Amino acid sequence: MERPFDQQLGALRKNLIQMASTVEMAIANAVKSLIERNSELAYVVVQNDEQVDALELEIDKQCIDLLALRQPLANDLRFITSAIKIINNLERMGDLAVNIAERVIPLNQEPQLKPLIDIPRMATITQTMVKDSIDAFVNRDAERARSVYERDSTVDALNDQIFRELLTYMMEDPVNITRAVHLILISRHLERIADHSTNIAEEVVYIVKAKVVKHRSHSIDK
Amino acid sequence: MERPFDQQLGALRKNLIQMASTVEMAIANAVKSLIERNSELAYVVVQNDEQVDALELEIDKQCIDLLALRQPLANDLRFITSAIKIINNLERMGDLAVNIAERVIPLNQEPQLKPLIDIPRMATITQTMVKDSIDAFVNRDAERARSVYERDSTVDALNDQIFRELLTYMMEDPVNITRAVHLILISRHLERIADHSTNIAEEVVYIVKAKVVKHRSHSIDK
Repeated sequence: MERPFDQQLGALRKNLIQMASTVEMAIANAVKSLIERNSELAYVVVQNDEQVDALELEIDKQCIDLLALRQPLANDLRFITSAIKIINNLERMGDLAVNIAERVIPLNQEPQLKPLIDIPRMATITQTMVKDSIDAFVNRDAERARSVYERDSTVDALNDQIFRELLTYMMEDPVNITRAVHLILISRHLERIADHSTNIAEEVVYIVKAKVVKHRSHSIDK
Repeated sequence: MERPFDQQLGALRKNLIQMASTVEMAIANAVKSLIERNSELAYVVVQNDEQVDALELEIDKQCIDLLALRQPLANDLRFITSAIKIINNLERMGDLAVNIAERVIPLNQEPQLKPLIDIPRMATITQTMVKDSIDAFVNRDAERARSVYERDSTVDALNDQIFRELLTYMMEDPVNITRAVHLILISRHLERIADHSTNIAEEVVYIVKAKVVKHRSHSIDK
């Protein structure tokens, strides 16, 4: 028979997965609103951020209660303190999806600057990183976590490439500048979402292997 | 006589203050390297980030040990779980100082685009926000914490103003574009540092007043 403590941990895990899928959906919709030029969908992303915020507060409380009432040790303790950090990262990702949506709204009021190729590619990779980092955490799967931060340098490279390409559009004609800057910022938001997934993945490797992989990104990516 | 638990908490508090002042110095130096066009100082900021990363890991371990070995309750528990979140914010601020320094290095290789007025102003406000948010946390001072997020909207307004001004420089002459984009990103990095201070300040009000002020920023600032 399951002990109540395990049930509480199970409820925490379930909420975490729900928060993660809400954030994944927000990112997917923000990108979709850009690609399909659908401003209504962008507004939905902005409005739905409340759900993410509410889930963060609820999970945070669950974690504190588990720590206070159950005084867990070792693995369970690590799982809970990691959950506290991970929901912080998820909440920021939700905000970044909102930031993307907020750039899409003015962009959709003007003609499209260029066909989008690299941004959707970057978005697809970023979305798999978000999903895999949370799956890795919930399943304590270090291999899958590692695969997340291996993808981070691809996203960084795409972000650089997008930046350079949009610079040429700006140089060509000042009329392009505002739209190009919006797209540069959208690309940066995606890159930061990937960074947050990497933070989560590094945390997973840390708790599974008790090995520090944090803070390696500077030397590799910069 | 002081109990060992208090001593451990005191050591945690001391490390937190050290981490915060290392980050404050990084931000101050990154801004100084921009204003004084001092690329050597920018390199120092990049190199010193290791110290911030090392402190984060050390404090994280202290927190976990305190939770595991001491099983603290109520206020102490809240202090420790908040510390876990706060060092995450501080570490990101350190990274943002590095990001600023990394933009300063190429900027300093070209003639100055314009005399900088708003960015230094924004930097000064941001630096006081960082300092006050940590002081508020260490002293459990909700009033001071509140004063931090009151300043956040000023920083957001300055960021918008800088963005608009730099757009006009880009429109005027394509030669300005690259430098203007660097400055726009520096301004955004500062704005995000202010956001992290606001996160810390909101956490302080939450633990002192047991009142949620998180997630109010969207409705006010956007």
